[in-house]
Amino acid sequence: MSLELRLIGIGAGSPDHVTREGEAAIRSADLILLPRKGDDKSDLAELRLRIVAAACGAGPSPAVAAFDMPVRDPALPYLDRVERWHDVIAERWAGALAAHPAARSAALLVWGDPSLYDSTLRIAERLRPRPALRVIPGITALQALTAAHAIPLNQLGAPVTITTGRRLRDDGWPEAAGTLAVMLDGACAFATLAPDRYEIWWGAYLGMEHQILRSGPLRDLVDDIPTIREDARRRHGGIMDTYLLRRMDGPG
Amino acid sequence: MSLELRLIGIGAGSPDHVTREGEAAIRSADLILLPRKGDDKSDLAELRLRIVAAACGAGPSPAVAAFDMPVRDPALPYLDRVERWHDVIAERWAGALAAHPAARSAALLVWGDPSLYDSTLRIAERLRPRPALRVIPGITALQALTAAHAIPLNQLGAPVTITTGRRLRDDGWPEAAGTLAVMLDGACAFATLAPDRYEIWWGAYLGMEHQILRSGPLRDLVDDIPTIREDARRRHGGIMDTYLLRRMDGPG
Repeated sequence: MSLELRLIGIGAGSPDHVTREGEAAIRSADLILLPRKGDDKSDLAELRLRIVAAACGAGPSPAVAAFDMPVRDPALPYLDRVERWHDVIAERWAGALAAHPAARSAALLVWGDPSLYDSTLRIAERLRPRPALRVIPGITALQALTAAHAIPLNQLGAPVTITTGRRLRDDGWPEAAGTLAVMLDGACAFATLAPDRYEIWWGAYLGMEHQILRSGPLRDLVDDIPTIREDARRRHGGIMDTYLLRRMDGPG
Repeated sequence: MSLELRLIGIGAGSPDHVTREGEAAIRSADLILLPRKGDDKSDLAELRLRIVAAACGAGPSPAVAAFDMPVRDPALPYLDRVERWHDVIAERWAGALAAHPAARSAALLVWGDPSLYDSTLRIAERLRPRPALRVIPGITALQALTAAHAIPLNQLGAPVTITTGRRLRDDGWPEAAGTLAVMLDGACAFATLAPDRYEIWWGAYLGMEHQILRSGPLRDLVDDIPTIREDARRRHGGIMDTYLLRRMDGPG
């Protein structure tokens, strides 16, 4: 008997980012897989359940199978740590699925889009027997950022590079890039750049109630953003942010 | 009196790509701006009107102001041609808006996302007086492509470059890139690459009824895709496609 596993992009934090396709896939699922981090509110389980409720309206709701998210082993080197962490998450999914043997379809709600800096596709590949995979695209934080600033991602006909904070910090500005979008940056890697050469569009809690936006020459914001970020993190018990940089001397 | 102009991303072709936010912004608009290309079905006006109808359900629908899309002047060089074309489109929008002076909000339904290789933000900047702009993100063809193939856009923690067919043809493979997403390619620029070095994931009519997918080593598909593409274009009276390429020797 085969299982369909649905990886459903639910957007950057606003329940209104969910698509018609996403809502239908939630509504018709037999089971929702719900990650939990103990009492830690950063699992956003409540927001996920609100999205499920909105998708189902007055109709019946799928069963919910919660599972505990493991913690990464800090003793391992970075790539090993991620690989081992994915192994353990896959085991937790398998456990949650095993507790609901009658379910023919299970849905996992994924922040942003399952294709962009997200692990669920790689975790799903570890399941045995392999489920049929169905991926439903969702609005990324990057799209919520450009929409909130009302700016295009690309300059006219020009390329865009999307990268991580770690890569920007380790490898520097990609020589050929005119526009660089940076995700997964926990440590303000923009501060490693020459502040006179770039413009920045930054956003936190995009699409959410506490959304914060800043934009301007990097030299004007390079000190402010880390302060605003730290302050917001303390106030809201966590931070989700992303940013776009452009070279002031034109596209690459 | 000020006008709110809503640029609403409606996704890559499936009406089910529309988000809750997009539906609400359509439903509550006073006016829908609808581009027309004479009798040319490639304006997809009917599909746009179906999306408006789905968003409004049994409730009242906004008025529709159709305007004729101008043609680009082939005598001008590329960038001038695009600039002049955007000027004329802005004039057509202004004309359609002037015919509905009581409208306080107008919505334009944009394929994909208004931030990615789309002109509406640049056209909107030309309007005088300047309207208040509201951008609503939508699913891009690139996201529909990765979802349909059930693949991640990026390799683990690695950057991704998004570019156009014109750039790939003129500038070649960006040295540092491991993954390249190509949009707006009317002429199979992948055929200019060394076929033994790359893998391709290609899709046409993504999210639509006639969706076509192909993936594999570029050497196995470099001749097939142009044939499939030409055949589909003849059959359906137009083609919309996009693709992802990865270097086989690993990420850049």
